[in-house]
Amino acid sequence: MPHPSRETARELDRADPLAGMRGRFALPDGLVYLDANSLGALSTGVPAAVHRAVVENWGQHLIKIWTDDGWWDMPQRVGDRVGRLLGAASGQTVVGDSTSVHLFNVLTAAARLRSGRQLILTEEGGFPTNHYLAASVARTLGLEVRRIPMPKMAAAVRTLGERVAVVTAGVVDFRTGELWDVSAITKAAHDTGAIAVWDVCHAVGALQLTLDADSVDFAVGCSYKFLSGGPGAPGFVYAARRHHDDIDQPLCGWHGHAEPFEMAADYAPATGIGRLRVGSPNMLSMLALNAALDVYDDVDMTAIRQKSVALGEFFVESIDAHLAGLGFKLVTPREGCRRGSQITLHHPDAERIMRALNKRGIVGDLRPPSLLRFGYNSLYISYSDIFSVVEAMRLCA
Amino acid sequence: MPHPSRETARELDRADPLAGMRGRFALPDGLVYLDANSLGALSTGVPAAVHRAVVENWGQHLIKIWTDDGWWDMPQRVGDRVGRLLGAASGQTVVGDSTSVHLFNVLTAAARLRSGRQLILTEEGGFPTNHYLAASVARTLGLEVRRIPMPKMAAAVRTLGERVAVVTAGVVDFRTGELWDVSAITKAAHDTGAIAVWDVCHAVGALQLTLDADSVDFAVGCSYKFLSGGPGAPGFVYAARRHHDDIDQPLCGWHGHAEPFEMAADYAPATGIGRLRVGSPNMLSMLALNAALDVYDDVDMTAIRQKSVALGEFFVESIDAHLAGLGFKLVTPREGCRRGSQITLHHPDAERIMRALNKRGIVGDLRPPSLLRFGYNSLYISYSDIFSVVEAMRLCA
Repeated sequence: MPHPSRETARELDRADPLAGMRGRFALPDGLVYLDANSLGALSTGVPAAVHRAVVENWGQHLIKIWTDDGWWDMPQRVGDRVGRLLGAASGQTVVGDSTSVHLFNVLTAAARLRSGRQLILTEEGGFPTNHYLAASVARTLGLEVRRIPMPKMAAAVRTLGERVAVVTAGVVDFRTGELWDVSAITKAAHDTGAIAVWDVCHAVGALQLTLDADSVDFAVGCSYKFLSGGPGAPGFVYAARRHHDDIDQPLCGWHGHAEPFEMAADYAPATGIGRLRVGSPNMLSMLALNAALDVYDDVDMTAIRQKSVALGEFFVESIDAHLAGLGFKLVTPREGCRRGSQITLHHPDAERIMRALNKRGIVGDLRPPSLLRFGYNSLYISYSDIFSVVEAMRLCA
Repeated sequence: MPHPSRETARELDRADPLAGMRGRFALPDGLVYLDANSLGALSTGVPAAVHRAVVENWGQHLIKIWTDDGWWDMPQRVGDRVGRLLGAASGQTVVGDSTSVHLFNVLTAAARLRSGRQLILTEEGGFPTNHYLAASVARTLGLEVRRIPMPKMAAAVRTLGERVAVVTAGVVDFRTGELWDVSAITKAAHDTGAIAVWDVCHAVGALQLTLDADSVDFAVGCSYKFLSGGPGAPGFVYAARRHHDDIDQPLCGWHGHAEPFEMAADYAPATGIGRLRVGSPNMLSMLALNAALDVYDDVDMTAIRQKSVALGEFFVESIDAHLAGLGFKLVTPREGCRRGSQITLHHPDAERIMRALNKRGIVGDLRPPSLLRFGYNSLYISYSDIFSVVEAMRLCA
């Protein structure tokens, strides 16, 4: 790559096959939005879809939305659309509750699939809720949680062997942006007979996941980050088909019943992924997500990942070229294949720098006291945007 | 009341102080909508509020919605608005997940408050999910569920005494529309030291609840029935302030953490009702509910209940006068004070009759094989609507 400059950025933008996708997002003029790992931008098709859902479906069709409008199956239909981005064949993904709720449910179900084993392994430094919920599940089932640094996870599973019931971790580290080897860690779990539960929050929509090919058992995620599903958009859960008949989850609500409208007094789980539904899902948020997913009908996930890796490379090279000696330290791995779609920098004055960036119309994410996180979505971030951030950091530092 | 006729209905409508409220709802012309106990109608302020949330807040403010737009506290702020209709002082209600999720959470928390006791009492014939979740909670905590017919619940609690950990039931029976004595059953529970958990799904918005005055411990409910919050609108949970410091719930997500943005590796629950938050709530659905609640700023719950009782009385008298000998049997109690805002009729040809009603633009709810349920919302149902239903049933039966 040539010397990273404003001109290089413009050249890369001119050659970018995804450049046209930015027009599909309603970003404020002049804003450089590098917080895709917190809340994705609004895509232009969403407002009309949500308005129609409110005014036509709810307002005019009322209770018939569930039948005539086909909304009852929406958790599975939207689930399949998300599933495609997970590398999941249809019928294995359902959209509905928050990531936390889905995670509690499948961690319990996973542990029950391996009853008699004592350990849940979680990633040291992983997203806090994952620890809280693993601890809660372990407590109710009488198990023990061990926190393992991710680079040692596969080895730890092998060492602990048949004591391990469940291995759970994020695909991309939320702080550092490091991408873990889903296939290898899942294989290590399976080699000892354990179940692998992945949190794909910081990966889905940013890179092509291959959950089926990697033989992942369960995965959960949210849809408001790279998928741009909207504020607090519903989470989802993936369960490999081979487990469907044996899933025994604590959140057994009427939507997951085999015959939900019979209102039977006893629980009989639905066959298939529908079993993982709980109660009534928030349909307006679901419809917003459904509209947001339209963008992915017109672009290949491989192209998104290619650009994301290239944006990251340009980011790192620009940092090297322009921020040397200014106190920044790259926290994210330098190799593109080991990154999600995020660059994290350490700086002793991170807080002041982020405030200064905000004043220049650049939005990133601060993790006090000293981390600056920048999540770039290939669909609406350009090389020029990346250069603008680096340039602004040079001026502020 | 004079003989129930079309003319009497018109007179009652002319004298109805709430008649003007119908204009606040966007009901299709000519539709008689008696399914408020399944999905409430769209109020006219909602579409613009949701559109603004999508286009302005999400679209323009992006991640700043949580801070500058004040959305982080929305679960508590909307919770307080719902709480007013529950008879709850502020700071005891939070809106977020589905009723099922909240119920699982508080049933577990309630049972933990009475550890050492063995029994969870649920209402025989209650809403199925409540049974499923009670059974699930009992299983994980090693407890036992007993199903008790509601008329015997208070006596059963007294007989079973200190073995009872939790008593849980719906305030209004979802099938029959019967209203139970929350105060008396809660008192019976407390007299033996048990915790009372109420499901207010079929009551909230239909009648004034008095959870604080009744010393209720916990309550859960949905907002898509009489509250008209929208399809799958978020549920809510009420927890009496005296329990806040001791609530120990299984769904300990990062939103319920004392310092959610510190991303601490260990769980430390928030003080106050915020502890019952779990993960990211679906904000578009939350904003729709928030706008739907505006209607309740302009009308007193007592007036809503008064009209609801009068609509029910007119309904019953019209049935008596016009449907005698046609095979209908009133399932709901005849006394207004023992009803929610619902009339349920038994008829051997219920399915055929409901289809015929639908063809005449009347929407009710069928519970196969033989129950016809009609939920009337005082805010948009008139006495003429009620008469139309009875008249149509006379013609169809």
